[in-house]
Amino acid sequence: MIKKNIAILGSTGSIGTQTLSVISEHPDLFRVEVLTAASNYELLIKQALEYQPKAVVICKEEHYPAVKSALSSTDIQVYGGTAALVEVVQLPSIDIVLTALMGFSGLEPTLAAIKQGKTIALANKETLVVAGELVMSAAREYNATILPVDSEHSAIFQCLVGEPELSIEKIILTASGGPFFGKERDFLSTVKAEHALKHPNWSMGQKITIDSASLMNKGLEVIEARWLFDVDISQIEVVVHPQSIIHSMVQFTDGSIKAQMGLPDMKLPIQYALVYPERVKNEHPRLDFSKYSQLSFLQPDLNSFPNLGLAYEAIKIGGSMPCVLNAANEVVVAAFLKHQIGFNEMSDVIAATMTRSNRMEAPDLADFLEIDRQSRAYAEEAIEKNNRIITSTNFK
Amino acid sequence: MIKKNIAILGSTGSIGTQTLSVISEHPDLFRVEVLTAASNYELLIKQALEYQPKAVVICKEEHYPAVKSALSSTDIQVYGGTAALVEVVQLPSIDIVLTALMGFSGLEPTLAAIKQGKTIALANKETLVVAGELVMSAAREYNATILPVDSEHSAIFQCLVGEPELSIEKIILTASGGPFFGKERDFLSTVKAEHALKHPNWSMGQKITIDSASLMNKGLEVIEARWLFDVDISQIEVVVHPQSIIHSMVQFTDGSIKAQMGLPDMKLPIQYALVYPERVKNEHPRLDFSKYSQLSFLQPDLNSFPNLGLAYEAIKIGGSMPCVLNAANEVVVAAFLKHQIGFNEMSDVIAATMTRSNRMEAPDLADFLEIDRQSRAYAEEAIEKNNRIITSTNFK
Repeated sequence: MIKKNIAILGSTGSIGTQTLSVISEHPDLFRVEVLTAASNYELLIKQALEYQPKAVVICKEEHYPAVKSALSSTDIQVYGGTAALVEVVQLPSIDIVLTALMGFSGLEPTLAAIKQGKTIALANKETLVVAGELVMSAAREYNATILPVDSEHSAIFQCLVGEPELSIEKIILTASGGPFFGKERDFLSTVKAEHALKHPNWSMGQKITIDSASLMNKGLEVIEARWLFDVDISQIEVVVHPQSIIHSMVQFTDGSIKAQMGLPDMKLPIQYALVYPERVKNEHPRLDFSKYSQLSFLQPDLNSFPNLGLAYEAIKIGGSMPCVLNAANEVVVAAFLKHQIGFNEMSDVIAATMTRSNRMEAPDLADFLEIDRQSRAYAEEAIEKNNRIITSTNFK
Repeated sequence: MIKKNIAILGSTGSIGTQTLSVISEHPDLFRVEVLTAASNYELLIKQALEYQPKAVVICKEEHYPAVKSALSSTDIQVYGGTAALVEVVQLPSIDIVLTALMGFSGLEPTLAAIKQGKTIALANKETLVVAGELVMSAAREYNATILPVDSEHSAIFQCLVGEPELSIEKIILTASGGPFFGKERDFLSTVKAEHALKHPNWSMGQKITIDSASLMNKGLEVIEARWLFDVDISQIEVVVHPQSIIHSMVQFTDGSIKAQMGLPDMKLPIQYALVYPERVKNEHPRLDFSKYSQLSFLQPDLNSFPNLGLAYEAIKIGGSMPCVLNAANEVVVAAFLKHQIGFNEMSDVIAATMTRSNRMEAPDLADFLEIDRQSRAYAEEAIEKNNRIITSTNFK
């Protein structure tokens, strides 16, 4: 395999650090070209000194001087501010851009990398959730390959390798069910962020862990799968599989089902995206069936977890609506983490924001920026209104 | 897809009739060129009149006149005797030879078809068990493709589609465990053929059903997999999976596992072998996870079922030993079906036959015929000796 040059957008987060760990396991296969961080400048400096990339970006500009000064004795170019992400991904030497940015912020740099025909290792599902049609058509136009890093989508992608086109009958996305599987709304009204942050199988960032508990993560994945694999939303089914061993499945037109399995460990899908179409030996722990003697499958509960239903609804409406869903969700997750709203209110606010928003057909990037901004404002207002009601009720 | 011309060796058995049913579902894709039967001439005549092949073979020569006369008003060529199998598979118009012959008898016609460069859809695992090295090297020499029809090997083959060469770390063959899974030798000493013939998941011929109950079928599959996928025997693991939903798995060098799943229905692997590398839509029943909410995995019990261990031993010894194992097994299964020996004695006789036989390196076809003949004689003698002991014990 020829050595590949990697840019990691979001190198200090959970996916970013695991990507660097995969790269360290195979120094003969990869070179780090770019590292970027939102605000964790201390870790970014440490990573830059270790991996010696061509360039780093610290998005929060107040930390720029610290990074600049720490790397002053190196050849590393240091940039400050989010706008620089769009520039650095265009470096001609980059082969693969791994996008592990959080939420909507991944869209612009991903589009910029696509327009340079780069291979995208996509760990930022919100990019496709918000603007799947725009992103996929740009990828076709600029001949850019998009490889999934999400474990479920990597599983589907691995199942599809070598299979004929148009042979998908159904995609079966597995969901762990999160820490609250089997609970009713009454119980869920009492849960706090610290409970939701205890995921049974996966260790991940805060945003995605809350999304997992609320099933919004699975909803976003349904939308991501719709675009990545070019299937109709009716061809995507969610099955709860609490052990997180089967990462997802594809049912083909002849009824055959292929599943990809393994221990819950993001390093596998990360490595697969970086070395595809090859497979490269590693020493990660292997699945031992004597320790997983039962795999179970259950139906998701859309009454307790309306977010999954809202996501199906958003993509069925289409146009700008998934962007609205995503923006409202980013706002409510942040509010839930700060104990400003309860668990069930997250869905209520998203539903209210969707109801208030008009559908726009085929938005462009500028439209998405505006829809995102407006939806966030609507969601903030809905939270405020909700809290006013709760407060007045408390004072009755 | 261009219409494919199919020869079915063993068209009146379980796999043969299911193959004809798959062909009937897709009359635009297939044409039946050859049908052959061991002794069921009445069904062979019926099939010949329906599918109008170019030629039929009835192996038991006493039935030749009946078949000849029943098809006298057609253009179908009728042959009698086993030797004709070797001739008919060489018809230039044949694209795929599906070999569903029973036991050792599949070897010669399969080799003949390989030497014509035909694609082999292999449902006769004994061909590879007996002479895997010979058959696979002939396939390479004559550029013949061998496609597995066994559900486990089809599963592995499907998992390997599109994957890089040499990326297999381990093959995980699943086994239903058969009707006696979990039983001890004391219990097994009392079971009769009629109990063993009740397989929990699959409806199959008598020989393979007894082999499933004794785990010899899994042992033969281990040897088949070793040759089909060119792996070391240490890379093949057997896991008991009582639901027979996961048909087998491949673990790759990066730790990723792919599994192929579906309802236990041989029509899928048959169809896949006939249309490969395509997939073709069908209306067979689909797997419904709400009906299979638990999949379980257990270790095989080599104390109660020594056959699996004997098969591993035979392929580790190599050379002629798998042929010895197979011949002895064919004899003991026939004897068990006729109530001449008990369930546990089957393994005892196979072990005794293996102990008595010398290993021969790289046998050719003539050697295999002789080894097969001699091993059968040894097994018959062991059965006789065993029964003398039992009889004398009874008369004490």
